[in-house]
Amino acid sequence: MAFQLHPKLQADTHLISSTAQCQILLMDDARYPWIILVPQVTEIRELYELDEQQQQHVYRTILRVSKGLAQYTNAEKMNVAALGNQVPQLHIHIIARFERDAAWPAPVWGVGNAEPYTPQQLEQMLKDLATVLD
Amino acid sequence: MAFQLHPKLQADTHLISSTAQCQILLMDDARYPWIILVPQVTEIRELYELDEQQQQHVYRTILRVSKGLAQYTNAEKMNVAALGNQVPQLHIHIIARFERDAAWPAPVWGVGNAEPYTPQQLEQMLKDLATVLD
Repeated sequence: MAFQLHPKLQADTHLISSTAQCQILLMDDARYPWIILVPQVTEIRELYELDEQQQQHVYRTILRVSKGLAQYTNAEKMNVAALGNQVPQLHIHIIARFERDAAWPAPVWGVGNAEPYTPQQLEQMLKDLATVLD
Repeated sequence: MAFQLHPKLQADTHLISSTAQCQILLMDDARYPWIILVPQVTEIRELYELDEQQQQHVYRTILRVSKGLAQYTNAEKMNVAALGNQVPQLHIHIIARFERDAAWPAPVWGVGNAEPYTPQQLEQMLKDLATVLD
């Protein structure tokens, strides 16, 4: 079965770039620099269900994107999480956190409402991140 | 500098077992089967700051513990997260989630108060998990 991005992820994010096996997406929430990594594997909900090769690729991508986003944003802390209680398709949150942000020190999930980027902000973020994470 | 477990993790958890490089701890909260993995590395806050060998060991341990805890608890979903906004020492949460649990479908952090295990429950959990995760 061909991989299809979950409709909720489709609705909430914009594509930054793709690797051979992952989509790298920007969450449309200007409150936090927030990337979502989606392994393009069907019918998988848990990291440990990936095969060995996929596990390695996903882990390397998590570390590369975390480090790149941390450096680009000068983050005070990175939050990395695979939850999936609401969206069953395996996806990994990679979020740059700051002591001044809207949820600090709590996790970001369930805090207030997303504040979409302006078209100009969005264009700049996607362009910058595509370069930084290349 | 010798590794020392952060006082907050020391206070909130019990040791299940150790690997060569990680402590595997049980969160003392009977509401969720909740393991915390702590790489025994000093002065590291982010996964990507581990060296290559440590990264591999930690990732393999995350996957092994996630799968073991999922199977032991018959979890509906595993939550895996490295946050560290409040406790700066690098630690990874591995939590078995159920649709009937106290926080579902939200993440567990910041929801109500921990409910410690009874001494009997705790003894059983530690014994079972040491076997399951061996």
